Amino acid sequence: MNAETVPTPASRSLDSLAAHGVWSPVLVPLRPDLGIDSGRFVAHARWLLAQGCHGLAMFGTTSEANSFSVAERKALVDEVTGAGIPPDRLMVGTGCCALTDSVELTRHALDAGCRRVLMLPPFYYKGVSDEGLFRAFAEVIERVGEPALRVFLYHFPRLSGVPVTEGLIGRLADAFPETVAGVKDSSGDWSNTRMMLDRFLDLAIFPGSEVFLLDGLRAGAAGCITATSNVNPAGARAIFDAWESGHGDPDAKQAAATTIRRAIDRYPGIPAQKYLIAHYRDDPAWRTVRPPLAALDDDSGRDLLDALTGTEFDGARLGA
Amino acid sequence: MNAETVPTPASRSLDSLAAHGVWSPVLVPLRPDLGIDSGRFVAHARWLLAQGCHGLAMFGTTSEANSFSVAERKALVDEVTGAGIPPDRLMVGTGCCALTDSVELTRHALDAGCRRVLMLPPFYYKGVSDEGLFRAFAEVIERVGEPALRVFLYHFPRLSGVPVTEGLIGRLADAFPETVAGVKDSSGDWSNTRMMLDRFLDLAIFPGSEVFLLDGLRAGAAGCITATSNVNPAGARAIFDAWESGHGDPDAKQAAATTIRRAIDRYPGIPAQKYLIAHYRDDPAWRTVRPPLAALDDDSGRDLLDALTGTEFDGARLGA
Repeated sequence: MNAETVPTPASRSLDSLAAHGVWSPVLVPLRPDLGIDSGRFVAHARWLLAQGCHGLAMFGTTSEANSFSVAERKALVDEVTGAGIPPDRLMVGTGCCALTDSVELTRHALDAGCRRVLMLPPFYYKGVSDEGLFRAFAEVIERVGEPALRVFLYHFPRLSGVPVTEGLIGRLADAFPETVAGVKDSSGDWSNTRMMLDRFLDLAIFPGSEVFLLDGLRAGAAGCITATSNVNPAGARAIFDAWESGHGDPDAKQAAATTIRRAIDRYPGIPAQKYLIAHYRDDPAWRTVRPPLAALDDDSGRDLLDALTGTEFDGARLGA
Repeated sequence: MNAETVPTPASRSLDSLAAHGVWSPVLVPLRPDLGIDSGRFVAHARWLLAQGCHGLAMFGTTSEANSFSVAERKALVDEVTGAGIPPDRLMVGTGCCALTDSVELTRHALDAGCRRVLMLPPFYYKGVSDEGLFRAFAEVIERVGEPALRVFLYHFPRLSGVPVTEGLIGRLADAFPETVAGVKDSSGDWSNTRMMLDRFLDLAIFPGSEVFLLDGLRAGAAGCITATSNVNPAGARAIFDAWESGHGDPDAKQAAATTIRRAIDRYPGIPAQKYLIAHYRDDPAWRTVRPPLAALDDDSGRDLLDALTGTEFDGARLGA
């Protein structure tokens, strides 16, 4: 497929259900009462797919997933699939602190036709053993008991406080080789992503930022699942396409996307991206976040817009 | 009431609904299917009250609260009040990551007659602003909209990763002076507890460990809410009684309880205490924990029993 030589791993054997490409963890717009605005969500999801995202992760960190109840999360999955977004373009976040919640959300995703789920470990207790975490994931997989299920493990230690370690991934992949399909690595630590790529040839490894997309693809990553694809989906897609086709200059595309990402990263990510969408779509409703997050203030918003001036960020696309 | 001189603060003005004394955050026994064993829970709750606990905190950290769904938590509150445990002896944990869950649990506690709730801040997002956290608590209080409600803020930064700071407590106490009734300080940092005692004269301050009970009482604390009261309720109560009555030797009682606590603290707290109850009640079912926690292994259990030998720990009481 790609004209470049992929140096390592020499060969990866990925299940056809292992996702690939640029996946967007979709921001969740809110109504004034802080309930989920499913209409705006579906419109944004369609826009992301039209802009080139290969798929959509619903209810990861960027979706403020843990700020919503199980009932709210299930209702949005139903709205989205009911609106005609293809379930095979979705990966549904289902990993909660409570085993019973994770089971309920995972079963519901499958019932809605979504076979791919993104699972955080239970994240309240810190310093727990890999044995306890293995049982936490294993209980969900066993209770759901559905061969169609594909689980992507979600490693985001800065927020969860609970790392998904090499040893834990190995145990889960050995115990559930059909089900455990990949990992989202949001550590922001390339050496960790590289370890996963070298160690787990049968898993689809997604860096959690487009900053690592090209390095990742060259080392065998499946793509990336990246927050800022909500406002710059074309930037990440351009890297992927240049790499896959062997045409164009993937390094230049990477440099452009990284510059944009770094500018946004100077602000709280979810409020900053909601601010950008509100601004360029002329739709102030988009600025709302659910507590404990706080909306970006006007001064910071203007600074963010300034910081993006001179980059290749194309705000006008957001209004398209 | 107490014969000792309380040096500072000179006077505290606590609402009659501010709890006081030794409160036990009740361990939650499980069935083999990892569901809550409400029968064993009610029996243990009765035992704790009979052993001298002034009250019971249901669904704090020690209750594995976040490992259960909202429905499981509501059902246990109903079972406990239905079994005749007086609601005014209960403080119900209701602080979740999702605002909607916190509102639902708080309303339910009030409907069950429980006016006191213990609220963690939303704990997934780290590094959030006090403004965002203020809104998170304020939204719950405003949406519930019940003057009878008394909120105890729960500061446990080692597990939650989200501190309840002096500034946040001050803002909440100013905005909701009737409702915000106290703080459980599980920082394990006496200087922080001392700051709270000095700064918030109208709040009931509970250190999260009996290790600080006597120092706390002497500085104006309301008592303590302490995990190890599940296995040594009499130890904490003895400190409180000696201090309150002015008879006996509260420092000796404190030293004895602290020694027991330090021995237990060498093991994971929840599995260790469940092990002790299982052992002394000859009831192996008590050992079960819900993932991501893991039950204490036999070797560690024997070491724990050995470590308690020579202390004043009275295991036989657990079987009473």
